[in-house]
Amino acid sequence: MSHENARSTPRPQAFLIGLVGEGVGPSLTPPMHELEGSRHGMNYVYRTIDLAPAEGTTEFLRRLLDSARRLGFTGLNITHPVKQAVIPLLDELADSARAVGAVNTVVFTERGSVGHNTDATGFRAALNDAFGGDRLGRAVLVGAGGAGSAVATALAQHPLDELVIVDQDAARADALAEQVSAIGRAVRTAGPDSLPTELAVADLVVNATPVGMAAHPGTPFDPALLPTGIRVADIVYRPVDTALLQEARTRGIRTMSGLGMAMHQAADAFEIFTGARADRQAMLADLNDLVAAEAAEHALEPHHP
Amino acid sequence: MSHENARSTPRPQAFLIGLVGEGVGPSLTPPMHELEGSRHGMNYVYRTIDLAPAEGTTEFLRRLLDSARRLGFTGLNITHPVKQAVIPLLDELADSARAVGAVNTVVFTERGSVGHNTDATGFRAALNDAFGGDRLGRAVLVGAGGAGSAVATALAQHPLDELVIVDQDAARADALAEQVSAIGRAVRTAGPDSLPTELAVADLVVNATPVGMAAHPGTPFDPALLPTGIRVADIVYRPVDTALLQEARTRGIRTMSGLGMAMHQAADAFEIFTGARADRQAMLADLNDLVAAEAAEHALEPHHP
Repeated sequence: MSHENARSTPRPQAFLIGLVGEGVGPSLTPPMHELEGSRHGMNYVYRTIDLAPAEGTTEFLRRLLDSARRLGFTGLNITHPVKQAVIPLLDELADSARAVGAVNTVVFTERGSVGHNTDATGFRAALNDAFGGDRLGRAVLVGAGGAGSAVATALAQHPLDELVIVDQDAARADALAEQVSAIGRAVRTAGPDSLPTELAVADLVVNATPVGMAAHPGTPFDPALLPTGIRVADIVYRPVDTALLQEARTRGIRTMSGLGMAMHQAADAFEIFTGARADRQAMLADLNDLVAAEAAEHALEPHHP
Repeated sequence: MSHENARSTPRPQAFLIGLVGEGVGPSLTPPMHELEGSRHGMNYVYRTIDLAPAEGTTEFLRRLLDSARRLGFTGLNITHPVKQAVIPLLDELADSARAVGAVNTVVFTERGSVGHNTDATGFRAALNDAFGGDRLGRAVLVGAGGAGSAVATALAQHPLDELVIVDQDAARADALAEQVSAIGRAVRTAGPDSLPTELAVADLVVNATPVGMAAHPGTPFDPALLPTGIRVADIVYRPVDTALLQEARTRGIRTMSGLGMAMHQAADAFEIFTGARADRQAMLADLNDLVAAEAAEHALEPHHP
């Protein structure tokens, strides 16, 4: 393609990305990517590929990956419920994906399809932004599902004394603890009943359950359990200001919203797809705008019974 | 997606197009489209989907169309050898495609996939650019293959007294004559042996064979047969200046290269895909640059035995 270099009109670099998962239509990741691509002067098209529940099979995913590569996709983001199912279909796994045991980013390279995980790296970067210099001795993670898995990996890679994983499903918590203990940090599990004692001595608590989202209102635990001096992080970002974060703030507790992780996971994926450096400040401003515009739009909608 | 309207940073419109056919890798249509999209401030990604010979089957094409639509393609350009094979797979045919009996442009709309043909409209526009005001009583078309079919349709839609179709394969010439006679113009066929008499009384001759391309050097007929006052059009555009056009020009005969058709078919498809108006002058300048850069590159390559 070197003939393009001889042209007076430069042809912008083209990138084609898709987001594969269930219910991906309203995702804000596509506009975040396209806006960042525009800032770089790229032709950057990011499509959503909404899976029906019956389509999460290995065979369907295999054909989808083949088609995407064949039709010229640069890569894909992968989300619920196929972040694990995609793994056996890939040619290679990056360390980030191996550590979490899940893939949210696939890039098609000359040597094949390579799976990455930017949920974990994204959460870690967000944590550094929010509480960078702070000592974080003991961290409590509430929720050991898909998001919890990425957060646990990120926390275990962060300088911490101990990570405590709490989930209503004890087996799920144990499995996650065993997985991240390989990273070398002290990890144990606890039941929701022991949250009062666990939170009392924690420096950080992270909500990685869906509680706090519009569809799952409320708080994942009683905010009265939060001691002064703890830090509270939520991975929910729609709404940005969850009931948990609001309660914590009224008590003077430092908080971190889910926006940072949402932005950094997109920025990390953008860098993997393009090889260019993402403007994370601008991407965060975009995400803020997108969330605010979406909230304003919902406020204008007639209330459904 | 109305939340985007509320944003301060506008998100450019995104278009995703593919070119399906054999040997499409070096096509200049993708850069023409992407450059025009850039001029409009669009996110415009145009990919090539190179078919292996065994892949031109109906079943393979059906899956390819399904995948393209599912993965978010705006539309496709279709080229050799599947311009006819794609027809039964489409939900609707535009008049342009029905007239030629071939599809080179598919757009995915809410009511389904619609096939168009911009080869014929593209040749017609190029003819108007080149010889617009000229009376063209009798036109001779040499070559009744895929390209010849589009050119014959365009010529039959042009004000002409008679169209003569010449091909070594008499059955192919007859079939094309029958097809375009439905347009209402006088059409007949002739064998290559009668070219001396046919050309002697023609106002226009069009080469729609591959002869003159780098891979098929030479001229499609003896240029000494060209009478003064005839006009010569070539659909070959790599090289732009074919041996036929060079010979004609040295004898003071007016010529039209294949660039105009190549540009107009792309511009017409761009308008179908986007609903925006193509800047045809700029697209022609781009195509000139692309062809020149490619020729310069080839000139630098070591000669192969």
